Amino acid sequence: MSLDMNRIKQQITFIECLDQLKQVIRQNLVMDESRRENSAEHSWHIASMAMVLAEYAPQTLDQLRVLKMLLLHDVIEIEAGDTFCFDVEGNQDKEVREELAAEKLFGLLPADLGIEFRLLWDEFEAGGSPEARFANSLDRFQVLLQNFNTRGGTWRIHNIEKARVVERMLPIKEGIPALWPLVEDYLEEACVKGFLKE
Amino acid sequence: MSLDMNRIKQQITFIECLDQLKQVIRQNLVMDESRRENSAEHSWHIASMAMVLAEYAPQTLDQLRVLKMLLLHDVIEIEAGDTFCFDVEGNQDKEVREELAAEKLFGLLPADLGIEFRLLWDEFEAGGSPEARFANSLDRFQVLLQNFNTRGGTWRIHNIEKARVVERMLPIKEGIPALWPLVEDYLEEACVKGFLKE
Repeated sequence: MSLDMNRIKQQITFIECLDQLKQVIRQNLVMDESRRENSAEHSWHIASMAMVLAEYAPQTLDQLRVLKMLLLHDVIEIEAGDTFCFDVEGNQDKEVREELAAEKLFGLLPADLGIEFRLLWDEFEAGGSPEARFANSLDRFQVLLQNFNTRGGTWRIHNIEKARVVERMLPIKEGIPALWPLVEDYLEEACVKGFLKE
Repeated sequence: MSLDMNRIKQQITFIECLDQLKQVIRQNLVMDESRRENSAEHSWHIASMAMVLAEYAPQTLDQLRVLKMLLLHDVIEIEAGDTFCFDVEGNQDKEVREELAAEKLFGLLPADLGIEFRLLWDEFEAGGSPEARFANSLDRFQVLLQNFNTRGGTWRIHNIEKARVVERMLPIKEGIPALWPLVEDYLEEACVKGFLKE
């Protein structure tokens, strides 16, 4: 096979661009509390979680699509930045910013790949498929684990109340119902330990 | 489905342990040269590369297994640390250290999952399957891109000669032969630019 140099150059440009996700800093901390987490390592963590927790999906899933969605779900932050979930103002224009970012970033790729990745990101965002609901649930559950293991993490730092966290975790109830009782236990224990306000 | 609490606790312990891969620092730099890369974000980067470059595999691959291998391939570094490829001394006991690390880390999981993950890691290490050869090739190719984009990166910092880098890149010749001419072009250009010694 001889390389289509134009095509491979577009692919390499996208791969080089991906490197910037390592510089997008999220609100939550890594578990030893030494620093905040970046979106690249977060994406690796939840993709790995999908492998560990696959059995709790409420129905048989296309695991490959789940992993692809999780690997790609935050790529748009390279352009749009990470928006903290409890930042009311930042969330007002989040959709527009991310839409533009998706067009720009996936537009770096050859059209067929750009469309494939864009559809995966759209599917994750819409949360309409069982795969997307499972992936979204892991995105929430990872933050719960990070916060629980960092004395409340962003809940404590930003003085968040339990009711708001429950609301934020609700996608898990539908996406991975088997884990919901565990989520409730975590949040209750977080309150008892003073990690989270009642 | 009611949760088997013993099982889910083992799974969560493993997921919490995974967080430590974000603290394992590799030799190579991120592309803006602001710091060295960690193994968690590196793993995300090459898993994403597998999505972008899938078409260059010399035969049809089980893509899900490729992604799983790439997500897991460095997990043993949580216990064994990252061993720099050109560190002769460190590589002498690398195999023993990593073997012990694999037993310990995958041993945190319920037996069925522990065995599944261990087999994936063994497959990656052995490089016997087309999926493992493809995954290994990406592991090498990512370092090439990181180094090329950081004025030679570890090649420059550690004064490495081209012949050693070519040897290091050889798995790509078999794992993703279509990319080999590109690898040769990169290394030649790296020499011209002074990123790499002839």
